[in-house]
Amino acid sequence: MGSVAPSLAEMDASVVKVTRRTDLRDVPLPGSPEELSHSYCTDHMVTVRWTAAAGWETPEVRPFENLSVPPTASCLHYATECFEGMKVYRGYDGKLRLFRPDCNGERLVSSAQRASLPGFKFDELKVLIAKLMQIDGPRWLPKDQPGRFLYLRPAMIGNGPHLGVQTPKEALLFIIAVPWPDPSKKKPEAAGGQHGLKLLASNPDTIRAWPGGFGYAKLGANYGPSLVSHGKAQAIGFDQVLWLFGEDRQVTEAGASNFFIVWENKDTGKLELVTAPLENQLILPGVTRRSVLELARKRLTQSSGSLAPVEVVEKQFTISDVHEAWKEGRIVEAFVCGTAVSRATPYLTQIWSCPC
Amino acid sequence: MGSVAPSLAEMDASVVKVTRRTDLRDVPLPGSPEELSHSYCTDHMVTVRWTAAAGWETPEVRPFENLSVPPTASCLHYATECFEGMKVYRGYDGKLRLFRPDCNGERLVSSAQRASLPGFKFDELKVLIAKLMQIDGPRWLPKDQPGRFLYLRPAMIGNGPHLGVQTPKEALLFIIAVPWPDPSKKKPEAAGGQHGLKLLASNPDTIRAWPGGFGYAKLGANYGPSLVSHGKAQAIGFDQVLWLFGEDRQVTEAGASNFFIVWENKDTGKLELVTAPLENQLILPGVTRRSVLELARKRLTQSSGSLAPVEVVEKQFTISDVHEAWKEGRIVEAFVCGTAVSRATPYLTQIWSCPC
Repeated sequence: MGSVAPSLAEMDASVVKVTRRTDLRDVPLPGSPEELSHSYCTDHMVTVRWTAAAGWETPEVRPFENLSVPPTASCLHYATECFEGMKVYRGYDGKLRLFRPDCNGERLVSSAQRASLPGFKFDELKVLIAKLMQIDGPRWLPKDQPGRFLYLRPAMIGNGPHLGVQTPKEALLFIIAVPWPDPSKKKPEAAGGQHGLKLLASNPDTIRAWPGGFGYAKLGANYGPSLVSHGKAQAIGFDQVLWLFGEDRQVTEAGASNFFIVWENKDTGKLELVTAPLENQLILPGVTRRSVLELARKRLTQSSGSLAPVEVVEKQFTISDVHEAWKEGRIVEAFVCGTAVSRATPYLTQIWSCPC
Repeated sequence: MGSVAPSLAEMDASVVKVTRRTDLRDVPLPGSPEELSHSYCTDHMVTVRWTAAAGWETPEVRPFENLSVPPTASCLHYATECFEGMKVYRGYDGKLRLFRPDCNGERLVSSAQRASLPGFKFDELKVLIAKLMQIDGPRWLPKDQPGRFLYLRPAMIGNGPHLGVQTPKEALLFIIAVPWPDPSKKKPEAAGGQHGLKLLASNPDTIRAWPGGFGYAKLGANYGPSLVSHGKAQAIGFDQVLWLFGEDRQVTEAGASNFFIVWENKDTGKLELVTAPLENQLILPGVTRRSVLELARKRLTQSSGSLAPVEVVEKQFTISDVHEAWKEGRIVEAFVCGTAVSRATPYLTQIWSCPC
């Protein structure tokens, strides 16, 4: 009789194994060097191992520690890696909340697929996060400090030891929680604080993403190669790169966040909230982007009191369009949004865009 | 008096620190499962740590072991990583030899720059490899077994613990040596061995690289996102993807190797050795590719005995050109070349290209 192929185990967050650490770390104060370092994590982490032979193993919540990675591991050579950015908030009612975690779960599964990493039922992600927060939430987001949050970083890597160029045969999903500076606590510019966000338009010789590429997936491969431009922009006083694409220099996204502009339409004179479309797969389908669009479509498209109605449009537009609108005084505002740089309601900020 | 900024230390392979292991590993036999796994390394590895604050630290040759990587490390999230592929050969005169190691050193420095990783004087690479081979060479490439080789994998990763999207502030260069199957030892197809290399032309909806991207650099970011297509090609009996680009579907490279074709020129009827050009930075400037071109230009461009002269041309050509030449019987041969899949003299192999 032939042997029956064993079915691969699916991820099952309900059976998570918990190992608590006894040497708890100090919780850094808001604004402390530890918090500003973006490198100081909470006491525990989630790990879930996967193998091509057996599928997902039992998820673990265990003491935070460095990962032991074979020098031959796929993620170190072939960028078989993807991630998500989320936040968990302590509410004024004492409860912990995630912001649309299923959107992040779905996107992580989509990114994993693009990187040849294993899939799972996307709603397992929020269950794993809940398990981690059951352990670390009470101490790292105290109930008497409502409004505080932790940055969450779910990530998946190919960590098998096979150096040949091939689809990963082993993988690790891990989730870490990181105290993160609160952007709403920054001093306003008038009080000597940070200026409005400055974006530097990318040069035509450097392109972040391309149709048929992977700009729509949250892969490590979208970030490392963009850091040269990012570093150059920061060195001359800008915050991020505004990535353009194509001979007509379409505005796409800001690399770590989606870009919106509110202007008077050149032809109709009507107010428009505009952002780049998803269809050509050049930009990340941001969770905050989606919420901005949903809220604006729900609340801003009808005139309300003294507020004029705003048309909400996802369409291609170019840096020349922005430049022209700027010269003609048609720009009302512009902003970027993303998990790391915005609050759950997006952190609107003045933008200075450099058409060059 | 103002303090003077300390200068960053350059990489200095001459001062390498050696820590020998005492529990030496078994050297796998040719064709053994260990060798075929592409994951079994020699006893030692080279590591060189870099920090933005101090530059390169003292290089080390030390026992091979897993790397301890912070879960927040840049290389796991943002693909700040690049690598090289090389081989070290035991010669019939008993000496160990590298194949044009300075070409790999130069390319590693170029790749590192594209990934915002630190640079170094490229000829330090071969000195570090020599140090590693002084320790592991005698046992892993015995003098009485000339012709054997080890695959060498120098790699650089951003391994600092800062999760913010920024240029790496810490990095690690490491070099490992891996016993690798000898492609020249494979049985020929007529004797029941592997068929000639089969390449599957990429679909228009998936591209490997684009102008203004990083296809010319040996970044992890070029590999992970290509594995979906690679896996699909392998699942239906092909060995690699032949990556096309643009509306006219230009032939670029095979992902893990460069592609050459020998055909009769449609217009002149003369023999041509053709490969994609480097100018648009879509393809990797292969070390073997360069050697093939140099040798062909030196030895094949004049008629010699019964051999017709061959023109050697780096130019754009399309999959339609290949298809047409195939139908008209003008293709003489085609081959791929690269370090991992070829011998020092390129391993010529029959190709079946699928124009679809």
